[in-house]
Amino acid sequence: MCSLTVPREPLRRVAVTGGTHGNEMSGVCLAQHWLRAPGELQRPSFSAMPVLANPAATAACRRYMDRDLNRTFTNTVLTARAHPDDPYEVTRARELNQLLGPMASGRAFDFVLDLHNTTANMGTCLIVDTAHNVFAMHLYRHLQMLSPELPCRVILYQLPKEESGSLGSVAKNGIALELGPQPQGVLRADLFTRMRALVAAALDFIQLFNQGTAFPAFEMEAYRVLRGVDFPRTEAGDLAGTVHPQLQDRDFEPLRPGAPIFQMFSGEDVLYEGGSTVYPIFINEAGYYDKGIAFLQTEKLAFSVPALSMPAPDPTPGP
Amino acid sequence: MCSLTVPREPLRRVAVTGGTHGNEMSGVCLAQHWLRAPGELQRPSFSAMPVLANPAATAACRRYMDRDLNRTFTNTVLTARAHPDDPYEVTRARELNQLLGPMASGRAFDFVLDLHNTTANMGTCLIVDTAHNVFAMHLYRHLQMLSPELPCRVILYQLPKEESGSLGSVAKNGIALELGPQPQGVLRADLFTRMRALVAAALDFIQLFNQGTAFPAFEMEAYRVLRGVDFPRTEAGDLAGTVHPQLQDRDFEPLRPGAPIFQMFSGEDVLYEGGSTVYPIFINEAGYYDKGIAFLQTEKLAFSVPALSMPAPDPTPGP
Repeated sequence: MCSLTVPREPLRRVAVTGGTHGNEMSGVCLAQHWLRAPGELQRPSFSAMPVLANPAATAACRRYMDRDLNRTFTNTVLTARAHPDDPYEVTRARELNQLLGPMASGRAFDFVLDLHNTTANMGTCLIVDTAHNVFAMHLYRHLQMLSPELPCRVILYQLPKEESGSLGSVAKNGIALELGPQPQGVLRADLFTRMRALVAAALDFIQLFNQGTAFPAFEMEAYRVLRGVDFPRTEAGDLAGTVHPQLQDRDFEPLRPGAPIFQMFSGEDVLYEGGSTVYPIFINEAGYYDKGIAFLQTEKLAFSVPALSMPAPDPTPGP
Repeated sequence: MCSLTVPREPLRRVAVTGGTHGNEMSGVCLAQHWLRAPGELQRPSFSAMPVLANPAATAACRRYMDRDLNRTFTNTVLTARAHPDDPYEVTRARELNQLLGPMASGRAFDFVLDLHNTTANMGTCLIVDTAHNVFAMHLYRHLQMLSPELPCRVILYQLPKEESGSLGSVAKNGIALELGPQPQGVLRADLFTRMRALVAAALDFIQLFNQGTAFPAFEMEAYRVLRGVDFPRTEAGDLAGTVHPQLQDRDFEPLRPGAPIFQMFSGEDVLYEGGSTVYPIFINEAGYYDKGIAFLQTEKLAFSVPALSMPAPDPTPGP
């Protein structure tokens, strides 16, 4: 059984990381900008540290050099003995674990907000491990209330028994902010401005929490990842078709049994043969082709989030 | 003075190349598909050969490995002595020059159609060296008349005195088909279907020409590339701003003096200070960041295209 993620104390050590994937340009350029001008991340009760997470991949404008950094923060990788032939991202994950962790230790950062883009038509999303992350759910509600006209969605991305490996997992609490659609290697002004405003609002939320604000309980919905679905492929592994025009750009919309999901180069449609309605996300995400994922199936969950506020300090021990 | 590019004989040797940039997926997947099923490129008077131009970059899903292949077909590169340390694309350019050329020789292919995608909002474009390419202009007109609802635009991309270096330059005549917007590393069904239909129509046009069809003179407009404009950058070369929201996605629309072109991260707008209206293209193209190009300025030209038909065969010499 999972315990709820609720901070017991003010969050003093916060990091905002960009360029975990080196060609997701909103976070890359924000991190680079804040490293030159960190004042924007200052709040009265804390200061967030900007981090360019994967400098080599950023310089090469690639998602990663040797392996996906955002799948590399596993206990196995972080505790193995270092070796000169380690992949670049293994070495970098250990460096970040020293900087922002160590994972699961008292010295770890209180909160990491990791900035991402997707080529999919996903708008604004928060990616969180589980619905038990009460702090993240209240952050979501804060962001959504500030911009009611733009949907902000929560994705619960931890598969059962799977170790996340995400950058945020080195901190006591970590979530990803995902904005799309934006091509890899392109910086759109609209998404840059939106991500910058969302980060500012997230830091404002932490400030409110730190100063003792009480956030009431509420009801919400989130999308829980069930499984990935690969493209149709030839025996050699090349694409034999791609996402169907009726599915393309329809992230978060219901996909019902019998609806088309792929269009083969030979002309036929491939239909969704599952038994129940699912909600596809990361549809045709460039970074997922080499993971064998054309889209992720999710289910929509409704749940209650308990109230959040800093616990009252322990009474001063008597004489 | 330039001579007009008008074939004197039927086009027998035609190639369709994809993956010249390995992450431009419409051409990559079409070339791979046609290599498995070449019948689609067969016409009564000729058969087009599919070519995957940059296999290493395609496998890595990158624009290129060492240098941009589509700037490598220069006389200097193709005639230099081969060396084991040559960049991958230099070696590959020489291979393609042997396969499709040699450049400027009688043995060269009659026509190469090179398939590209852009992340810019450019729709359907033909990229041609100069307006003197009469055959290409008639091909443009043929494609435009087949789909009057979708604009097809012609870009004249050869700068004065500049050697093109493009793949098409190894053949007797070569043009590029450019479709956008599509993120690098993503295959959208809509653009795949459209590119496939355009290639089929281009092959049909060559068939019509080969069988003696006469194409009348007409008037047209095209966009001639004047110069590139770089992003605002810091002293270290990082981005200091990006394409202004009022310019983003407005490829081929007039840009008037005083209109905003960039939005700085510090908040100010940068205005277009040129003296005359230009027509920006390749706005925020991912592949141009490392070339120092945020967009290309073009001018719109109107001109007449002479009639096209195969010259009558020489009369048989008398006894």
